[in-house]
Amino acid sequence: MTPLQLPSIDSIDDAAFAARLQQLLDNKTKPVGALGRLEALALRIACILGSTAPVLDAPQMLVCAGDHGLAARGVSAYPSDVTWQMVENFLAGGAAVSVLARQHRLNLTVVDCGVRHDFAPRKGLLLRKVAPGTADASLGPAMSMAQCEQAIANGMALMRDLPGNAVLLGEMGIGNSSAAAMLLARISGQDIDACTGAGTGLDAAGRAHKRKVLRGVLELHAAATDPLAALAAFGGFEIATLVGAVLQAAQERRVIVLDGFIASAAVLVANALRPHVVQRCIAAHESAEPGHRLLLNYLELQPLLQLDLRLGEGSGAALAWPLLESACCILRDMASFESAGVSRQEPA
Amino acid sequence: MTPLQLPSIDSIDDAAFAARLQQLLDNKTKPVGALGRLEALALRIACILGSTAPVLDAPQMLVCAGDHGLAARGVSAYPSDVTWQMVENFLAGGAAVSVLARQHRLNLTVVDCGVRHDFAPRKGLLLRKVAPGTADASLGPAMSMAQCEQAIANGMALMRDLPGNAVLLGEMGIGNSSAAAMLLARISGQDIDACTGAGTGLDAAGRAHKRKVLRGVLELHAAATDPLAALAAFGGFEIATLVGAVLQAAQERRVIVLDGFIASAAVLVANALRPHVVQRCIAAHESAEPGHRLLLNYLELQPLLQLDLRLGEGSGAALAWPLLESACCILRDMASFESAGVSRQEPA
Repeated sequence: MTPLQLPSIDSIDDAAFAARLQQLLDNKTKPVGALGRLEALALRIACILGSTAPVLDAPQMLVCAGDHGLAARGVSAYPSDVTWQMVENFLAGGAAVSVLARQHRLNLTVVDCGVRHDFAPRKGLLLRKVAPGTADASLGPAMSMAQCEQAIANGMALMRDLPGNAVLLGEMGIGNSSAAAMLLARISGQDIDACTGAGTGLDAAGRAHKRKVLRGVLELHAAATDPLAALAAFGGFEIATLVGAVLQAAQERRVIVLDGFIASAAVLVANALRPHVVQRCIAAHESAEPGHRLLLNYLELQPLLQLDLRLGEGSGAALAWPLLESACCILRDMASFESAGVSRQEPA
Repeated sequence: MTPLQLPSIDSIDDAAFAARLQQLLDNKTKPVGALGRLEALALRIACILGSTAPVLDAPQMLVCAGDHGLAARGVSAYPSDVTWQMVENFLAGGAAVSVLARQHRLNLTVVDCGVRHDFAPRKGLLLRKVAPGTADASLGPAMSMAQCEQAIANGMALMRDLPGNAVLLGEMGIGNSSAAAMLLARISGQDIDACTGAGTGLDAAGRAHKRKVLRGVLELHAAATDPLAALAAFGGFEIATLVGAVLQAAQERRVIVLDGFIASAAVLVANALRPHVVQRCIAAHESAEPGHRLLLNYLELQPLLQLDLRLGEGSGAALAWPLLESACCILRDMASFESAGVSRQEPA
């Protein structure tokens, strides 16, 4: 295997272009700033796409799935088989993300990054399995470095092949809120207890057990301090594949829409590797999983929605999608004071 | 004129039906409650429409416009002419609400309820002018009781003629955040200072002046304690027309989507007249106008979006609309654990 080459990702900060966009927004027929955070969103999308009349083209809902060896330690309320069963449900059209992607005409691609199950090939499913589930991170690294780099390379390659200028991140993997919590704790330096939540629905005793297990895994991998080493240590294949997809999307200046805690953890890792990634990112929502708020704060991203979601799959990203479309419509289609013949604010 | 007959509006509380809906939601392929507030939204829409598979049909964006005599007292950052200019902008398709209604295929109807301008008739515009602007409420009632009742009757009649099972409330009227603030203060008993904000963009001195003016108007109309008397005292024609539209929509069990402070003030009055109105209502967002939060709290409505909007027009209602569609899609189209063959949560 050739050594992994991560793309270089430049800053897209452009004060002159941002000022031009702000002036365009301020000339629209509304009091200055009256569309609140929708205006900031319009400005961000326009800056990412480098257009004063941004058009979101062929948005891709990318749902990466993988299993976690650590699930055997009782860190999830659901059995690992739910991972492959939900992948089947995504493809059959019955899951939340399937329904919401249909509603908003998002092209849904499901990726087997490392599910403990053999899927029959079919439309909408990419088979990019590195291994049938990660190893148990409480005994050793979840992935070898070679596996970790393979999953990242898979993500970069599949993103290169997807059309459009926007990607929404989704995931499925029983046990993956544990991996996300450990990645957040290690990369941001926050305590694992604050980063750990109920996942799919643990009770108080289950959460206490999960915290104890994760603290032990973090201690076992105390030496895994750089982002790639941490990713290999804690997993999983779906997160690593998303890291590659995010790096590639950022390099291509696509709009990257975060979903919940786990998809956001992939962005955390990608941004730790290449610090301008976050300039291309939009936080769709803040989930009920407590680590998500800490992660978004660390990345200095403000979520669009706060609906107490805790499902993942990309469901929150899909729910927020129309707001991105609206932001573009405002910038593209609203009249200016001059063109509409509307009087401006009276001088104070 | 025949005396105004307000519709009787029954409670739609139905514990057995709500329990059936909750069971349907809990059987969907997701952890119980994992779609957070989207599930509560699905339940509410289903209860309003009385269907376990709700379909939102022919949604109507209703934008009521009127002028306010009180605007002459310097309570707004914009001149009154902006009201008619923005009505023209709505109809020409260049305003925020025009753009967003197009995006979401909401049928846009603009109503001249009492604008100080003569409009040429055209498609999408209803001429229901009671008078060319209200009287100056600092000198006497903004409307006579006959005018107030006429505007309410207009709203009821026009809602009867609109198709569909959902209505989104919008408004335009320079000075109408003053009317909304006074209605909130009088009906909820809160202090006028807390109910008063910057409107379209007053500075600190402007806000202080506005508060002083509104306190004086409230004192002048101290006897206007019942909802109809308060509405007549403070205005305006667009709010009264919306009150009628809301009462009629509630009576027909349409889904009523609130927008910002002024549209919500119409619901406040309608609900004071007929206390089950609020059961049919969904708060699209919490605006940056400080009275809006107080008003929604008073009605015990939780907003879907918090994007610091302060535009009105129905723009916030339009932005939230896809979430209502999503809630219906979840209830209608998601698979159950049984139908998808997905394992349930392991017993604790």
